[in-house]
Amino acid sequence: MLWTKTFIPTIKEVPQEAESESHKLMLRAGLIRMLMAGAYSYLPLGLKVLNNIQRIVREEMNNSGANELLLPALQPLELWQKTGRDKIIGEVMIRFTDRRGRNLCLGPTHEEVITDLVRQHVSSYKQMPLILYQIQTKFRDEIRPRFGLVRACEFIMKDAYSFDADEQGLDKNYSVMHEAYKRIFKRCGLDCLSVEADSGVMGGKVSHEFMVPAACGEDIVLVCPKCKLAKPFKEEKVLCPQCKVELEKVSTIEVGHIFKLGTKYSASLGANFLDAKGVLSPVIMGCYGIGVSRLVATVIEQNRDQQGIIWPKEVAPYDVLIIPLEITDGPIMEKAKELYKLFGDQGLKVLMDDRDERAGVKFKDADLIGIPVHLVLGKEFLKSGNLELKLRRSGEKFSFSAEEVLNKVKGSLDGK
Amino acid sequence: MLWTKTFIPTIKEVPQEAESESHKLMLRAGLIRMLMAGAYSYLPLGLKVLNNIQRIVREEMNNSGANELLLPALQPLELWQKTGRDKIIGEVMIRFTDRRGRNLCLGPTHEEVITDLVRQHVSSYKQMPLILYQIQTKFRDEIRPRFGLVRACEFIMKDAYSFDADEQGLDKNYSVMHEAYKRIFKRCGLDCLSVEADSGVMGGKVSHEFMVPAACGEDIVLVCPKCKLAKPFKEEKVLCPQCKVELEKVSTIEVGHIFKLGTKYSASLGANFLDAKGVLSPVIMGCYGIGVSRLVATVIEQNRDQQGIIWPKEVAPYDVLIIPLEITDGPIMEKAKELYKLFGDQGLKVLMDDRDERAGVKFKDADLIGIPVHLVLGKEFLKSGNLELKLRRSGEKFSFSAEEVLNKVKGSLDGK
Repeated sequence: MLWTKTFIPTIKEVPQEAESESHKLMLRAGLIRMLMAGAYSYLPLGLKVLNNIQRIVREEMNNSGANELLLPALQPLELWQKTGRDKIIGEVMIRFTDRRGRNLCLGPTHEEVITDLVRQHVSSYKQMPLILYQIQTKFRDEIRPRFGLVRACEFIMKDAYSFDADEQGLDKNYSVMHEAYKRIFKRCGLDCLSVEADSGVMGGKVSHEFMVPAACGEDIVLVCPKCKLAKPFKEEKVLCPQCKVELEKVSTIEVGHIFKLGTKYSASLGANFLDAKGVLSPVIMGCYGIGVSRLVATVIEQNRDQQGIIWPKEVAPYDVLIIPLEITDGPIMEKAKELYKLFGDQGLKVLMDDRDERAGVKFKDADLIGIPVHLVLGKEFLKSGNLELKLRRSGEKFSFSAEEVLNKVKGSLDGK
Repeated sequence: MLWTKTFIPTIKEVPQEAESESHKLMLRAGLIRMLMAGAYSYLPLGLKVLNNIQRIVREEMNNSGANELLLPALQPLELWQKTGRDKIIGEVMIRFTDRRGRNLCLGPTHEEVITDLVRQHVSSYKQMPLILYQIQTKFRDEIRPRFGLVRACEFIMKDAYSFDADEQGLDKNYSVMHEAYKRIFKRCGLDCLSVEADSGVMGGKVSHEFMVPAACGEDIVLVCPKCKLAKPFKEEKVLCPQCKVELEKVSTIEVGHIFKLGTKYSASLGANFLDAKGVLSPVIMGCYGIGVSRLVATVIEQNRDQQGIIWPKEVAPYDVLIIPLEITDGPIMEKAKELYKLFGDQGLKVLMDDRDERAGVKFKDADLIGIPVHLVLGKEFLKSGNLELKLRRSGEKFSFSAEEVLNKVKGSLDGK
């Protein structure tokens, strides 16, 4: 992609409305723009990152045997009344009456809808285990939206639901999901803690939260400074039973939450199955959420420096940024175009900064938007034919001949 | 994918609530389920088709130089008041007040939001032409939702917006989009008419609708039986000026609509730019919509027979359906698994019907769900080692040795 042909409106000034570092960087790097508090537009660069995260989530869910579907945001309130959650969830759920007089809501989650669907189609233990998931836009009437994509009124979730004939099946699926989550967050470039948690409005007995340490995090987790054991924060002083040291308070952002629901929803909505002995029982369920759009902000919280974002490889909107320091016709632009084509043909995702801007502006924006590998063609190229390669994360710079550059770029990307 | 590991709830009986053939088939083939009138869940098979259509749309939009972004569904009503469209669109727009007292709506389209975004970031003729698009979920308070995905309250649209410094630029972008639309509908396996149309609530001067002839279509188009010239229906008797024959009335479904908007939105929202002479003028806009979820139903309207759906190659949820007629361990299942792996390794999308069902049930479901190539392993295989290949569209059957099968399957898919 050529910079002049896409839409990356970077900003020099630090936006005043942004409270967290990730929010500031997302605005400055032209990833998102606020339409109103709690509702954001993803610009091309931000959408690419969002899509990369979705791709990682999809791959890990599919590899775990989960099947993707897509459920409506518009839901009949009636379904929520059957489980009593219309009251429990309360005002955070957006509700309205349509022209036909139907009481509707915008689903903040989908346990009711999926259980009702499975109720109609799963009637035997032979049809289970079954894991269904979706990546879908959810809505909350959030009274204090904050930190950009971290706490928004409209956001993207991955929600998965498991259906089993017995507790052993649920235990197995729960552990499969737990492992998938660890892989997802690792691939996103995150250090993530898994913490036993309360089940809250979801109900059920066992649940784990996935918490990412971050300065702007609003959830406190206790962490052992030695072995990294993590516990929910309930009291001030807790000693790690292994290391015999006091756990430390860490601010974190919740990026995932998994629950053993049991039969809470299947019992109230009548999702029953016949077991091997011919006995009718409610299906045993688990549910598994990931805050997909929130992850974009969280990845930035943990992958940045004073100059800007440092994208982990799998999340980066582009692999390589080519920076020609002269854009008029001549040897620099000729070589830049040649490399742009070469990299594209090799399957690399390339952005070229073909703007008519000073070198300083281009370098600053390059560090700000955080593409892993920068390739500079400037005076050095005119003199010696050499290109300068910069690794955004380490800041290391290398000088190469044009012939070597493809191997060097590929090697740099593989090394990350 | 193994049939027993996914979720394809086919139905033998014709669903009573469905009025159109595509709606019946989508329910029977396990593509969608109704949550309530106007709101549908996409089950795994339906979501794959939807994603294939989205992929085609994306490829053609990106190849046309358009940049993808993603705008919020939640919008401040204030923005709609500025263009006066809150009144023009009326009750079909879902509106509510949130806990903070904000007057919000769910965007049935995004001219206001995108113009407001571009207003903030485009200030010079040098930043244009620019085409931005999204594939996004939209909402309408539809008083009579009908025909499943054809007229729904929640649906997926591709909406693109072009921004130009002069009328020539708009003309060029309009024609680029017109050509992209023709390619998109062709790749979806559709015969589609392009018809000059009224601009309606969008405003602007010139617009074209893309209309697909279908029995359940609610829009009448006049078509010349000889040269296929298409005109909007305004009066009963119109003669084709070329062929000198009377145009015929054809029922159609609208799948796309493109508009030369001019300065309607940029003028009322203040999206101005400086031209080459330093004069400040409102940006010249076009907008370009495709009903993405509606396309799923429309493709079926034109690609089906008495037995079920016949997917065009690029839209099909899978390329090949392997049908082993014995699922107990033995030579049939052994070979079926071997082919399943072989095809998968070759990059083909394979579904295997490993259900414990009678041959008749499997054949009926195979025709119903409409995967292009069926591969049957039954008695003939046990006798001679031969497999039966059936082409869903023509119904032709061929018998091959297992060694030949990969080439034959690939050849069949390429020939479509």
